Amino acid sequence: MFRHIVLLAWVAEATEEQKAAVEAGLKELPGVIPELLRYEIGPDAGVSPGNFDFAVVADFASVEDYMVYRDHPTHLGVIADVIRPILANRVAAQYSF
Amino acid sequence: MFRHIVLLAWVAEATEEQKAAVEAGLKELPGVIPELLRYEIGPDAGVSPGNFDFAVVADFASVEDYMVYRDHPTHLGVIADVIRPILANRVAAQYSF
Repeated sequence: MFRHIVLLAWVAEATEEQKAAVEAGLKELPGVIPELLRYEIGPDAGVSPGNFDFAVVADFASVEDYMVYRDHPTHLGVIADVIRPILANRVAAQYSF
Repeated sequence: MFRHIVLLAWVAEATEEQKAAVEAGLKELPGVIPELLRYEIGPDAGVSPGNFDFAVVADFASVEDYMVYRDHPTHLGVIADVIRPILANRVAAQYSF
């Protein structure tokens, strides 16, 4: 399995509506990108100070399938329309397991 | 399910032996912390510039079980002995799904 992880931090001015739009937008992706075998996302639970604000874990059969997701126009649309306007910081990694 | 994610970045001087010791040390934890329902870890695949160097995804039945792992002496020993000496940066999040 090839796994892609992204942790996102929002700007202080991000509204609850804007944060909810990220989750709603990303939740559409498994329906349009069949390469997404597992897609578990959500806002940070708030139990640890200093955490980032939102987590994305996406599992694929291969690195090639990950790249389909990475470059998919619907995904890029969510990034441009609802993530980038409130993005303060982004950290990522991919690994096989 | 309650998920804990950590992404780690190593200092430039970190050796391959030191990086391998992190993976080996963490891989012992499921055998001593039964609260770890799933534990998928590994070095970054190297397909995306700017990524962090190592990923940990740990799944628990509850936030309380996560805290058992977080505070477990064997886990804290791995952090102190093999992670902290080569740690440049750490980002985390926890979420329910």
